[in-house]
Amino acid sequence: MQLNRDRLKGVFAPVVTPFQEDHLRLDWLEENLARMRETPLAGYLALGTNGEFKSLTESEKLEVVKVFVRLKGDKLLMVGTGCESTRQTTELTQRVADLGADCASIITPHYFASQMDDAALIGFYQHVADRSPIPVLPYNIPRLAAGVAISTNVACTIASHPNIWGMKDSGGVSLFAFLVALAGAQQQLPSPVAGEGQQHQLPSPVAGEGQRVRGQSAAPVSPTQFAVLAGSAEYFLPGLLMGACGGIISLANCFPELCCQLYSEATSGNLDAARQLHAQIHQATRAVSGKHGVAGVKAAMDLAGYRGGAPRRPLRPLTDQHRETMRSKLVELKLLEL
Amino acid sequence: MQLNRDRLKGVFAPVVTPFQEDHLRLDWLEENLARMRETPLAGYLALGTNGEFKSLTESEKLEVVKVFVRLKGDKLLMVGTGCESTRQTTELTQRVADLGADCASIITPHYFASQMDDAALIGFYQHVADRSPIPVLPYNIPRLAAGVAISTNVACTIASHPNIWGMKDSGGVSLFAFLVALAGAQQQLPSPVAGEGQQHQLPSPVAGEGQRVRGQSAAPVSPTQFAVLAGSAEYFLPGLLMGACGGIISLANCFPELCCQLYSEATSGNLDAARQLHAQIHQATRAVSGKHGVAGVKAAMDLAGYRGGAPRRPLRPLTDQHRETMRSKLVELKLLEL
Amino acid sequence: MQLNRDRLKGVFAPVVTPFQEDHLRLDWLEENLARMRETPLAGYLALGTNGEFKSLTESEKLEVVKVFVRLKGDKLLMVGTGCESTRQTTELTQRVADLGADCASIITPHYFASQMDDAALIGFYQHVADRSPIPVLPYNIPRLAAGVAISTNVACTIASHPNIWGMKDSGGVSLFAFLVALAGAQQQLPSPVAGEGQQHQLPSPVAGEGQRVRGQSAAPVSPTQFAVLAGSAEYFLPGLLMGACGGIISLANCFPELCCQLYSEATSGNLDAARQLHAQIHQATRAVSGKHGVAGVKAAMDLAGYRGGAPRRPLRPLTDQHRETMRSKLVELKLLEL
Amino acid sequence: MQLNRDRLKGVFAPVVTPFQEDHLRLDWLEENLARMRETPLAGYLALGTNGEFKSLTESEKLEVVKVFVRLKGDKLLMVGTGCESTRQTTELTQRVADLGADCASIITPHYFASQMDDAALIGFYQHVADRSPIPVLPYNIPRLAAGVAISTNVACTIASHPNIWGMKDSGGVSLFAFLVALAGAQQQLPSPVAGEGQQHQLPSPVAGEGQRVRGQSAAPVSPTQFAVLAGSAEYFLPGLLMGACGGIISLANCFPELCCQLYSEATSGNLDAARQLHAQIHQATRAVSGKHGVAGVKAAMDLAGYRGGAPRRPLRPLTDQHRETMRSKLVELKLLEL
Repeated sequence: MQLNRDRLKGVFAPVVTPFQEDHLRLDWLEENLARMRETPLAGYLALGTNGEFKSLTESEKLEVVKVFVRLKGDKLLMVGTGCESTRQTTELTQRVADLGADCASIITPHYFASQMDDAALIGFYQHVADRSPIPVLPYNIPRLAAGVAISTNVACTIASHPNIWGMKDSGGVSLFAFLVALAGAQQQLPSPVAGEGQQHQLPSPVAGEGQRVRGQSAAPVSPTQFAVLAGSAEYFLPGLLMGACGGIISLANCFPELCCQLYSEATSGNLDAARQLHAQIHQATRAVSGKHGVAGVKAAMDLAGYRGGAPRRPLRPLTDQHRETMRSKLVELKLLEL
Repeated sequence: MQLNRDRLKGVFAPVVTPFQEDHLRLDWLEENLARMRETPLAGYLALGTNGEFKSLTESEKLEVVKVFVRLKGDKLLMVGTGCESTRQTTELTQRVADLGADCASIITPHYFASQMDDAALIGFYQHVADRSPIPVLPYNIPRLAAGVAISTNVACTIASHPNIWGMKDSGGVSLFAFLVALAGAQQQLPSPVAGEGQQHQLPSPVAGEGQRVRGQSAAPVSPTQFAVLAGSAEYFLPGLLMGACGGIISLANCFPELCCQLYSEATSGNLDAARQLHAQIHQATRAVSGKHGVAGVKAAMDLAGYRGGAPRRPLRPLTDQHRETMRSKLVELKLLEL
Repeated sequence: MQLNRDRLKGVFAPVVTPFQEDHLRLDWLEENLARMRETPLAGYLALGTNGEFKSLTESEKLEVVKVFVRLKGDKLLMVGTGCESTRQTTELTQRVADLGADCASIITPHYFASQMDDAALIGFYQHVADRSPIPVLPYNIPRLAAGVAISTNVACTIASHPNIWGMKDSGGVSLFAFLVALAGAQQQLPSPVAGEGQQHQLPSPVAGEGQRVRGQSAAPVSPTQFAVLAGSAEYFLPGLLMGACGGIISLANCFPELCCQLYSEATSGNLDAARQLHAQIHQATRAVSGKHGVAGVKAAMDLAGYRGGAPRRPLRPLTDQHRETMRSKLVELKLLEL
Repeated sequence: MQLNRDRLKGVFAPVVTPFQEDHLRLDWLEENLARMRETPLAGYLALGTNGEFKSLTESEKLEVVKVFVRLKGDKLLMVGTGCESTRQTTELTQRVADLGADCASIITPHYFASQMDDAALIGFYQHVADRSPIPVLPYNIPRLAAGVAISTNVACTIASHPNIWGMKDSGGVSLFAFLVALAGAQQQLPSPVAGEGQQHQLPSPVAGEGQRVRGQSAAPVSPTQFAVLAGSAEYFLPGLLMGACGGIISLANCFPELCCQLYSEATSGNLDAARQLHAQIHQATRAVSGKHGVAGVKAAMDLAGYRGGAPRRPLRPLTDQHRETMRSKLVELKLLEL
């Protein structure tokens, strides 16, 4: 199936990579994907932060991607291919495209953080996008990327590249700024005097999918077609309300239906229902990954019937006490039976 | 007029303190307040960050407050009274209450940031609130307060104090977390199975003003009555959509009507109109105070017909070139005539 | 006694301000100064970070300074007079000069940290120094000043002001950079080929006091006369070895003799003895103020026979357990009897 | 030649990896090593930060190491083998040991920075050291490692591992703390009363090489044998004066003789000469790598007759203007002819 921009919406699970004693357990990954396939998830992100991509060798990465390609069914498959150099990133993106990935999620290089100014990031993403057989989604996560952030300036510049279809934003602050800047660049602003609310041409990406171009167009891409995916439960609903197209939510590893329900309520205009689900998801996320990160996500997967297991060292699994605290909180939030 | 909790909503201007050659120009403040009085602003914050409270002597602070009290009319008057020690803060709060302030906005102490753990902040706010004749609103602004943040834990604890009626949040991330935690603490969560969206008891503070207690009650205050005011244009609309009661917005110093219009559209359910105004306000805020802070706000006030002038040194006024760039951007955004 | 530059060397105690139940206990301060007067301390810093200057009202600050002036004897008296605005700082500096302070230690303004670029800081210090009756020592402490740092550029620029005689550096990294830059600006550098170590004109401020100008000169001040005082036990000995003139050391509140002994060994060339004392002082400082700050310093003063007491709230005194842990460590370090 | 602990002293060059149009130029590396072999450098660090190790694929890393092994002569060869997971790091360390590396420099894992507490780091280094055929040197560089730091506690714990022989410290602050803690842990401290400077058993690692154990001992290693190498020109001389054994200095890529001369003067007790060289080296380092990082080091190598070239993208080579500014500064510092 040829990817089109319309598919970049909904809830994506940043799927974990299972290990046992630091060895890959691809059979556990297969079990998880078999079960996720039955959910309304829009797709998967393989080799993301929750996929512990930084803890895998190059050949392990390819092994993992092959499992995803084999079992993705009709889900969209994003693969994290960001490395520190342009060359490594380009090569890895080409390889996963050859294997069958639908698009690439590419974190900002950040080891030489002080050198990663706007020009460096623009050059990096354009170079990779020029050579990538699949669409590219830059990934903004300053908290883990040593403070390196995709500025509004960078985002607006690379958004016009025909092979950069959107971005994943875990920066929180920049998400709204970015959506606003993109939207604001192309509309007729109301005058403060006459602005009685009668002429609101602002595109509403949540509801307005009819306006999106189907298929990859050779024509310059309008910024309104640019897909922003919220990279955190905290910003998922606020993001959707402000114009994001979906979210990549760690909790979707263990409670995918609930995350999809929030998306559904929000895009159907049921704001009260959406807010209530947001409260539930947000609190669950704090209990699951807020303190423990991927180790917590994996522990919650075990509790929810998926195959989580331990993260790769030096990350450590939860202690029994932390696991029990998490379980109690999830029971209290009605996500688990007593 | 006796303050009641219902009045803690809408748009508040964090009014600047005018200077000329580092001397207070209270007459300019009077001019500004005379004009703001004709707008739909809900009230004023005197001696906030934009009021350069840290750059004033103690006696100057009292002089400024007297002008506000004299000219506030039917606007609500908040005064920033936060100092580094509990004792200074308590005394200043008592003094401005005696002068006629309606409530106090109190920044977290932050010089000894590493000592400001949850227990220290809870003790600080409870001590001051116990002794304050007027309601107290903690002010969360980690960006300027050396990283000191009001955690969800602190907020939920102090929210039950009968004299702490809400908070101003410029932390962005914590705003939603906080609203969610407060709301989530008291409701029946839907079960993931049965949750068809039919039972959404989540309070919607934006629309639901009828549910709020009128007047200060001796009974323990329910967290749903707790007012959260967004302390940044970036979070104003997302905050309102998630449950905030209003905003304290620097742009309201120069374009108060526009900020009030956004509040009105959002609380009337006109989401498209609200988003469009958000785009305009957000971009204007970036042009005005994003880079230049209070110096930019003052320059924009000069352009908009208010009395801005220069900030107190070591802050510097905008260069002519920066001023012209700002003016062009505001013209482009239809906030100024060509 | 007219201050001369030669006196800016040796060990200075950043003397604490005693409180009881948040009230000033000036009688305790008198007791402490009476005892410190008998030590080899070069002088005092009143109203520094350890003096909790940010927690005092303006009138309290003046009360404190009066006690110091009355009891300083032949010690040099520095007073912390830094405020957020140029005007407040100038006025306070003039007042403490009138009361009898010898020089002023002035922290960088930092509430509007993002605006505090080199030009702002240079303007600030030059303005204050132009109007100060006493010499001015900028105080660099990015850790507590929201990251605002006196850059090498700022330091080299203001060092030529005839009324800026040196600086206190608690920045660690910048201390050596600064000394090196100042020294390097004026010397004949050895060529890499001929540089056999035979022509070392580098001034050695530790030993070379004879080279310093006596008294305040109207002539432009050479950077080599610029006094750098280490603001931390961690950098005291390394700083002395690299060219600093002395230190302002929190441990000098409780163990002044020991700190003076380190200075004496270092300036006498007894490097092994100095290193051993450094180990002792450094570990004691970690136990005393590393985690607890001024509360720890005050607790250690109580143990050492001075009047410490509790810090002003919201700072809290040490728990009994923390106090006992500290005592044990100080016994182990041979600073207290069992 | 069997490595012994005595060889971990002196100046090490963190050798750059040359590229042309993002392709490895191993022939240029060979030229550089041939020339460095004639200098008094103690050894090389391959695949360090200046070696752009994060920008290389796994197979490229091995290719680079093979060149070093072939051309190292009698220099000591450290290789950077730190990866994000324990497993990757262990495997890479074993491979470079098989190829002929003398020891491994291992950066702290840092992508999951918030999980890298003391226990995680201790476990990580002990696991790798247990399985490494060659001695392991942890590498502390919080500035580039997202703030992850090797605490004094971690350092003192892992220092007793027989296969952890020292560390490279680019943390600045922690260097002295660490040396002090190690030294302090094992000595008889002078009492403040009797401490007349007569019993200074503090080991002086700079001069005291005779005290070091020759060869790898099965007996528990005393902390005094632990080698601390300063990872920055800024801390090189202060570190040596406080007890460091040597330095890994980026400037040694272009001016190795000068760096070795500083080491020689410092260890011969010529403090004035050492300070003067420090001023020269420190200023040169600021001009070369302070702003531009490895791109600056490579540009300076080109100027000094080595093969630098461009860094791998997204890093960019210096502009002509920056190159000229650097050249002028190096001429002014007498490191280059006009």
